[in-house]
Amino acid sequence: MQSLKDRILREGRVFPGEVLKVDSFLNHQIDTALIDQMADAFYQIFKDRRITKVMTIEASGIAIAYPVARLFNVPLLFAKKAKSSNIDDSFFVSSVVSYTYKRSFDILVSKRYLSPDDSVLLIDDFLATGEALTGLIDLVEQAGANVAGAGIAIEKGFQPGGRQLREKGYDIRSLATIVAFEGDRVILKEE
Amino acid sequence: MQSLKDRILREGRVFPGEVLKVDSFLNHQIDTALIDQMADAFYQIFKDRRITKVMTIEASGIAIAYPVARLFNVPLLFAKKAKSSNIDDSFFVSSVVSYTYKRSFDILVSKRYLSPDDSVLLIDDFLATGEALTGLIDLVEQAGANVAGAGIAIEKGFQPGGRQLREKGYDIRSLATIVAFEGDRVILKEE
Repeated sequence: MQSLKDRILREGRVFPGEVLKVDSFLNHQIDTALIDQMADAFYQIFKDRRITKVMTIEASGIAIAYPVARLFNVPLLFAKKAKSSNIDDSFFVSSVVSYTYKRSFDILVSKRYLSPDDSVLLIDDFLATGEALTGLIDLVEQAGANVAGAGIAIEKGFQPGGRQLREKGYDIRSLATIVAFEGDRVILKEE
Repeated sequence: MQSLKDRILREGRVFPGEVLKVDSFLNHQIDTALIDQMADAFYQIFKDRRITKVMTIEASGIAIAYPVARLFNVPLLFAKKAKSSNIDDSFFVSSVVSYTYKRSFDILVSKRYLSPDDSVLLIDDFLATGEALTGLIDLVEQAGANVAGAGIAIEKGFQPGGRQLREKGYDIRSLATIVAFEGDRVILKEE
């Protein structure tokens, strides 16, 4: 998606460890006009699927998933990062390893809001090692629900998450894919 | 706001400790049609103010603040809950006590995205003791920016946060105010 790619090239900041910061428009300060365009792009990709819920993970996925859920006219559901005090058997729980923070944490979703009748479109801001998306898929499948697909804003194509999940048959679409970092330059995949 | 009040009365669940769960439509599963109506109500209240940013706190404020920012056509900014590894002097930082989780935590916002020229509309899902909103106000004022007002979905009117902040001169508007809990019944303020 050209407008997203332009913003990444113009405003993205590269930090050691192949970290791309896009906090001027995507995950701290948020440009709602750009995100609305991204939501429309996801809608065009997935509009012929049966979608009963849009699901993401707190916090930075929420602003991207909100306009997608509105376009599909279905509820938005966000998985929460567990605090030790709030897990009980009313939740589906999955463990996620965070490479950014070098620890693992549990994500959870209430059993009230996912059922075998659901067909869920997953949305997230980044896909790299695939841990967060794998956790979301696990929550959906624990509920016996269908993963209709996943829409990702920015994929680090040089990391294995996207390839591994596509090989398992999941339909994962990214609006911008990073091929490599060259120093502080971001090299994006040509469409 | 009647549609929000109706949903609270129909779907809100009261738990010990005067906890109201509205996770079927507001802060876990999200009804975007209802939230869009709430955003429009906030827009009608504040539309004649100078607003340059809409600001909230992760995670459950984000879905409410997103459509508000879109209506004002200004950036959305969300304060992050600090992880020990990500605080440095590029952030404004404020300490917040959570009564829900019985601990305090720091919230932060990048100095890049708030300046003395900004006039900020604050949005959050709940107002009770006022700790989170006080933290957001502190971040805005550390930047030398103006607090244009605050829009709250649900206020616990029997707790002191709203009154104390209004006495300090902040313009805080809530779309639904809980007067009391009677057993598992929610008593809402009449408009």
